[in-house]
Amino acid sequence: MTRKIDEVAEIFRGIIGPEWVITERVYMESYLRDETPDVSRPPAAENLILLKPSSTGEVSEILKAANEMRIPVFPVGGRTGLVGGCIPTEDGIILSLERMNRIDVDEENLMATAEAGATLADLIGAADEAGLFFPLHPGDEGAQIGGLISTNAGGVRAVKYGVMRNYVKGLEVVLATGDVLNLGGPLIKNNMGYDLMDLIIGSEGTLCVITRAVIKLYPKSGCSVTLILPYDDRSDAIRTVPSILRSGVIPLAIEYVEIKELNKAAEHIGDEWPVQSGKAQLIIILSGRSEDEVYSACEVISEVAEENNAGEPIIAETRDEQERILRIRSNIYTALKAEMVDILDITVPMSRLGDLMNSIDETSRKYGVYLPVYGHAGDGNLHIHLMKEGGEVPENIGEVKREIYDAGVRLGGVITGEHGIGHLRIGELDRFISDKELSLMREIKRIFDPNNILNPGKIFPRG
Amino acid sequence: MTRKIDEVAEIFRGIIGPEWVITERVYMESYLRDETPDVSRPPAAENLILLKPSSTGEVSEILKAANEMRIPVFPVGGRTGLVGGCIPTEDGIILSLERMNRIDVDEENLMATAEAGATLADLIGAADEAGLFFPLHPGDEGAQIGGLISTNAGGVRAVKYGVMRNYVKGLEVVLATGDVLNLGGPLIKNNMGYDLMDLIIGSEGTLCVITRAVIKLYPKSGCSVTLILPYDDRSDAIRTVPSILRSGVIPLAIEYVEIKELNKAAEHIGDEWPVQSGKAQLIIILSGRSEDEVYSACEVISEVAEENNAGEPIIAETRDEQERILRIRSNIYTALKAEMVDILDITVPMSRLGDLMNSIDETSRKYGVYLPVYGHAGDGNLHIHLMKEGGEVPENIGEVKREIYDAGVRLGGVITGEHGIGHLRIGELDRFISDKELSLMREIKRIFDPNNILNPGKIFPRG
Repeated sequence: MTRKIDEVAEIFRGIIGPEWVITERVYMESYLRDETPDVSRPPAAENLILLKPSSTGEVSEILKAANEMRIPVFPVGGRTGLVGGCIPTEDGIILSLERMNRIDVDEENLMATAEAGATLADLIGAADEAGLFFPLHPGDEGAQIGGLISTNAGGVRAVKYGVMRNYVKGLEVVLATGDVLNLGGPLIKNNMGYDLMDLIIGSEGTLCVITRAVIKLYPKSGCSVTLILPYDDRSDAIRTVPSILRSGVIPLAIEYVEIKELNKAAEHIGDEWPVQSGKAQLIIILSGRSEDEVYSACEVISEVAEENNAGEPIIAETRDEQERILRIRSNIYTALKAEMVDILDITVPMSRLGDLMNSIDETSRKYGVYLPVYGHAGDGNLHIHLMKEGGEVPENIGEVKREIYDAGVRLGGVITGEHGIGHLRIGELDRFISDKELSLMREIKRIFDPNNILNPGKIFPRG
Repeated sequence: MTRKIDEVAEIFRGIIGPEWVITERVYMESYLRDETPDVSRPPAAENLILLKPSSTGEVSEILKAANEMRIPVFPVGGRTGLVGGCIPTEDGIILSLERMNRIDVDEENLMATAEAGATLADLIGAADEAGLFFPLHPGDEGAQIGGLISTNAGGVRAVKYGVMRNYVKGLEVVLATGDVLNLGGPLIKNNMGYDLMDLIIGSEGTLCVITRAVIKLYPKSGCSVTLILPYDDRSDAIRTVPSILRSGVIPLAIEYVEIKELNKAAEHIGDEWPVQSGKAQLIIILSGRSEDEVYSACEVISEVAEENNAGEPIIAETRDEQERILRIRSNIYTALKAEMVDILDITVPMSRLGDLMNSIDETSRKYGVYLPVYGHAGDGNLHIHLMKEGGEVPENIGEVKREIYDAGVRLGGVITGEHGIGHLRIGELDRFISDKELSLMREIKRIFDPNNILNPGKIFPRG
């Protein structure tokens, strides 16, 4: 910022009131980081102002003023990202919409209208209270609606109903100029010109600030069970996945996990993983309207599993049991985090998942590094963890990462299916998409944000 | 075209071979129209060349040459559109990809790779042969993949799995410059920067030419039935729809129809509509993995229908019976077409469908015009037909149309949920979306197609 912080802060105090303009570093510490492992996360800039507006009108005035002064604006959500996408890497404004957290459920249309600062937990709760269900579960429930949409979040329950993009039917957004756009609505079909809404979903805060969204909900399922299928041989587990999907059963989630990491995660939270047979396992969540429907699907899966050499399946039926399984599964990341350098989210065609794993094994042997993997097998989406060795970041980590990226792309995949480009993957985008595609993206950025004030230095390199 | 047709044709003969360059009008008659009612369809231009390339490379060379010569290019598919979107309204090139019609089914990933010139019938057949299913059915099976994607087609079976956008996972497209882009792939998750693919879906041939697509397929359903629910009171029928969806049953299709038009359609094809009780009817298609699943869903629907005062439901179980019902339903449009001026496709939140119908009744009374309606009730998508009176286009047709559009938008909807803007709705776009949104769309058009050679005069007014 060329202007003095005090001068700028004064302008914003006039817009949103002095108590919502924070300039003291001590009160903004938690806004300077996300869930990216410490050693990979970019540092926050020195001169920052944290703003907490209460309305779309205030967001509009803030952006208009920032745009006129050419001050960078870093929109943040729940700061649960894994690629440093919301870190304020330049002097400027941190924009938190946490006060804008209202959710209205429209029971008749099975939709929710949620302000961007509402959390995933808020949305799950509001849907539940209205007798409805928001199926997607991209990890940390502290994630906010604005962030979930900006990053097109995925997670464990994307097999049946898709990723965040598939849920968003309407958006209210504020452009860098302060103009407010209303796109879509509680509609299933909409062909009014170009689909700006889908262009904005996944644009990581670089095109506009999302202030509100219309989100599709589903009826609560009458019955849900979680199956654990143990395998001695990983390739048998992987081969099971497309066979399940071809059977006509569409589970809510199909997760691939390995016993070593499950036991670590269980230990980390003082629990025990219930299935100790089989080093590779599939966790399958089934939901349906009735017990009959779900148990008949269980039978189909058990048959497919048996054909693919699975051990005896374990079925968790009570809510407590199912939640325990998911809790342990969700804590693999936490258990590994202290020793983690980076977590990748390569996505390949489902049928190439086994090839990707074999390739990662080779890389692991070649460089002598521990590369724990698990992931959303039903989506072809694998999380590969780059770990410290003896508490230190291995010297060859760059080569290891590059080799894994290259394998993913060689197998017809992409280097990020969930986490996005953010800050950590910036240098990679031009390796894996064509110059022409990148130049179209850059021109779109210029149209939306000609002064490059919105989350600068993310997705594209600065300048 | 400022150059002489012969001179231009010669250039293209060099690219794709003389037999695929058609300059005689008599051989291009069927390429000069789509399914838009005669009285509303814009006339084709006088000086046209029809090109039929056989590969993406040839499409690329054609576009490059056309772009250099600033010659308009009108990409056509199966010419089944209803808003004149593919009519070559200026002197230039008609580009038909009908020779590019290869389809490869990837059974393991439940995806098909289809060239743009393959028809909907080809895709349905290829999926079926591989033991898989393409659920969407946007009417005429002569529609081509490129057109289905360019218009983000919808139709009767969008309730369970969504519209065309939800099926497309990858695209190969050619830009006006001849550059070829490969976007996405057989992937369920992909967050590699801005989503150009979704921006292109529904862009009606104005941004680039789609040459190939990766399309998601589903397993064949083990069982399918079609229910007809008769109602004396239209509002009871409409009220049934959200109640079904809240029950947890998700049918493939929920259609609203009226007995008068059904009888006309049946007569038109020499058949009889099987249910003569109830002037308003819902047609519901259910599919599932097993008979148990489908019949249990039937029971739920019958209960909901009874609560909403439906008469005795009729269940069609055999394939023949179900096809007969759909055939009659699909012929409403054909039966009305000769007397039709325009067919609208207003889409509102599902809960406002009854209000939209009431409003249309008022308009009908006010202007003394017959306005038959039917539509995809599960999507809030209603087809309203503007009809001739005594064989003539009514004088007040513009006012009638405007009043219906206004009602749709007032109820939270859009003026087109399916057919798109094309040529017929150009003058309306700026009435219903903001200047800022329209200007972003125009700038995107300029980025992709700086010389405005691709389908000029569609979506936006020329110049």
